[in-house]
Amino acid sequence: MIVIDEERIFNEIYAKKPQSVSLNGPEGILAQVQQTAINITRKFDIPAFVIADATWGSCDINESGARTLGAGIHFNIGHTVSMDTVGNTVMVDAYDDVSFDSVALKCARLLRSGIVAVVTDSQHLHQIQNVVKILQKNGIRTIIGSGKGQLNDGQVFGCEFYPATSLRDDVDSYVFLGQSNFHAAGVALSTGKPTYVLDPYFNEVREVSEFAESLRKKATLAIYKAADAKRFGIIVGLKEGQLSKVVGLKFKRELESLGKEVEMFALTDITNERLLNIRNVDAFIQVACPRISTDNRFDMPVLSTPQAQGLLRVLQGKDPQEYLMLPHWL
Amino acid sequence: MIVIDEERIFNEIYAKKPQSVSLNGPEGILAQVQQTAINITRKFDIPAFVIADATWGSCDINESGARTLGAGIHFNIGHTVSMDTVGNTVMVDAYDDVSFDSVALKCARLLRSGIVAVVTDSQHLHQIQNVVKILQKNGIRTIIGSGKGQLNDGQVFGCEFYPATSLRDDVDSYVFLGQSNFHAAGVALSTGKPTYVLDPYFNEVREVSEFAESLRKKATLAIYKAADAKRFGIIVGLKEGQLSKVVGLKFKRELESLGKEVEMFALTDITNERLLNIRNVDAFIQVACPRISTDNRFDMPVLSTPQAQGLLRVLQGKDPQEYLMLPHWL
Repeated sequence: MIVIDEERIFNEIYAKKPQSVSLNGPEGILAQVQQTAINITRKFDIPAFVIADATWGSCDINESGARTLGAGIHFNIGHTVSMDTVGNTVMVDAYDDVSFDSVALKCARLLRSGIVAVVTDSQHLHQIQNVVKILQKNGIRTIIGSGKGQLNDGQVFGCEFYPATSLRDDVDSYVFLGQSNFHAAGVALSTGKPTYVLDPYFNEVREVSEFAESLRKKATLAIYKAADAKRFGIIVGLKEGQLSKVVGLKFKRELESLGKEVEMFALTDITNERLLNIRNVDAFIQVACPRISTDNRFDMPVLSTPQAQGLLRVLQGKDPQEYLMLPHWL
Repeated sequence: MIVIDEERIFNEIYAKKPQSVSLNGPEGILAQVQQTAINITRKFDIPAFVIADATWGSCDINESGARTLGAGIHFNIGHTVSMDTVGNTVMVDAYDDVSFDSVALKCARLLRSGIVAVVTDSQHLHQIQNVVKILQKNGIRTIIGSGKGQLNDGQVFGCEFYPATSLRDDVDSYVFLGQSNFHAAGVALSTGKPTYVLDPYFNEVREVSEFAESLRKKATLAIYKAADAKRFGIIVGLKEGQLSKVVGLKFKRELESLGKEVEMFALTDITNERLLNIRNVDAFIQVACPRISTDNRFDMPVLSTPQAQGLLRVLQGKDPQEYLMLPHWL
């Protein structure tokens, strides 16, 4: 069950006495966010607006939406970062209280030996020490990578993997706590090491190497398809934490110096449907969120920033290199 | 062919010398907007970003996107209004140069008698006097309704129909210049009079009463379905020109006084897909854009502001009345 830190929210409202508040959180916990909004209105008799737009991470907290709404406090729920606030937004923890005891034991039996690094996402961060204890007690040498920037110790985002990549030379494999093949595939791709998902709901240990490899192949194919393009569209993301205008304009100059034509675009949500409205563009580069390119399906090549770096090498007659083996895909 | 008033754009750039600009326009003219962006960069050597998000009207010019991008001037193209600028955005005309001569003659022969009001959308405003002349020369008494607010004489939006509704008692029918059944159905629904589309591309005069009636029936059915709901979600739109928080909160109080439970939501794009993430809500009222409710398909009742007014009457045991026969559906 997802447990939202409502005490933190209530204390903020007691302290600041806003006339209204807004809340958002990822789709998977929206039902719990709705209940928290109901609890706020019951307790304080103020409107609590659930902003039901997507919120993909601390890069996408929708402060502009909260500002438009005139909310006195905006709470982004479920994206735990190393800071209490991001901009004017209060970042609120939402933990999953599911136990990893059984699946961690299963993992220890499966792995038997070698050194393992434990990583996880926001919802299971509080379980990480417990799992380390179980693995160690069962003979598995286990370490946790240090946090960096917004990342806590052992935490990974979909695009940022410092606590994993920093241990690359020290470990044999990674275990990811939770159900997210999405995050675990990021760990596998950024480190090139075997990565296991410890899924407490299915009580299952599964390797994600095959899934990660399928993403990598698709991403590489898109690079080579884009290399044949004459006319590029570079898309700057309009979500506040995803704006990389300077990077976009740098790619424009570099592609033009290699003889390509380039048009500049901006989009809030970069979807195949929106891109189909754009004419006479053979390939896109989007500098908003790298996972848009690796995890979604598009009718034309849509490269992320690391893929675009690979493309530039290909256009210069070089190998694209291990363009995803980076701690941060931006 | 769509002709964008590039001279206006170039003059603004000459005068203000921005470091970069942004442009947007409705999907149907996006290819032309792309070409204008290319022309700007060729002429002034500055980045011209095409914001490819939807822009449904002067209520949805995406100034916040342009601000995020740091564009020196934002041009919204193709939504002609009675003002040159809306907020900080320069509103640029985009006219369709297709001729109405042939279809207007056809219309005169079809109608034969009665008094007709001519209305149209942004793209064909410049043709309205020419069509009036042809109709009158062929014996049809023709008038043009006065503009109001953002509307020019004879102009209608998807949600606002003053030049049509103001003539309701004076005319027998309306003719809409263009291809848009969407706008013409709005005229038919807001006036209750026969409305004909003068489609210059198909050289066809078609009545939209049946289509309009199908929209009205669907809208009324949604009202009666919503009347059975226990728990309502009220959605405030986050597009700058669609924010109606006060109206949303008014509906909350009114529904609660009638024994309903109400949760508050906010969304940028109100789609069936986004609403499916929300749990335990039996019916929605959205106060963003009335056409979202009348023209889209949802799995649950999603009422617009005029439909919600009808709902309140139904909940009080009354008839919903002619809830769409209004000059402005807000």
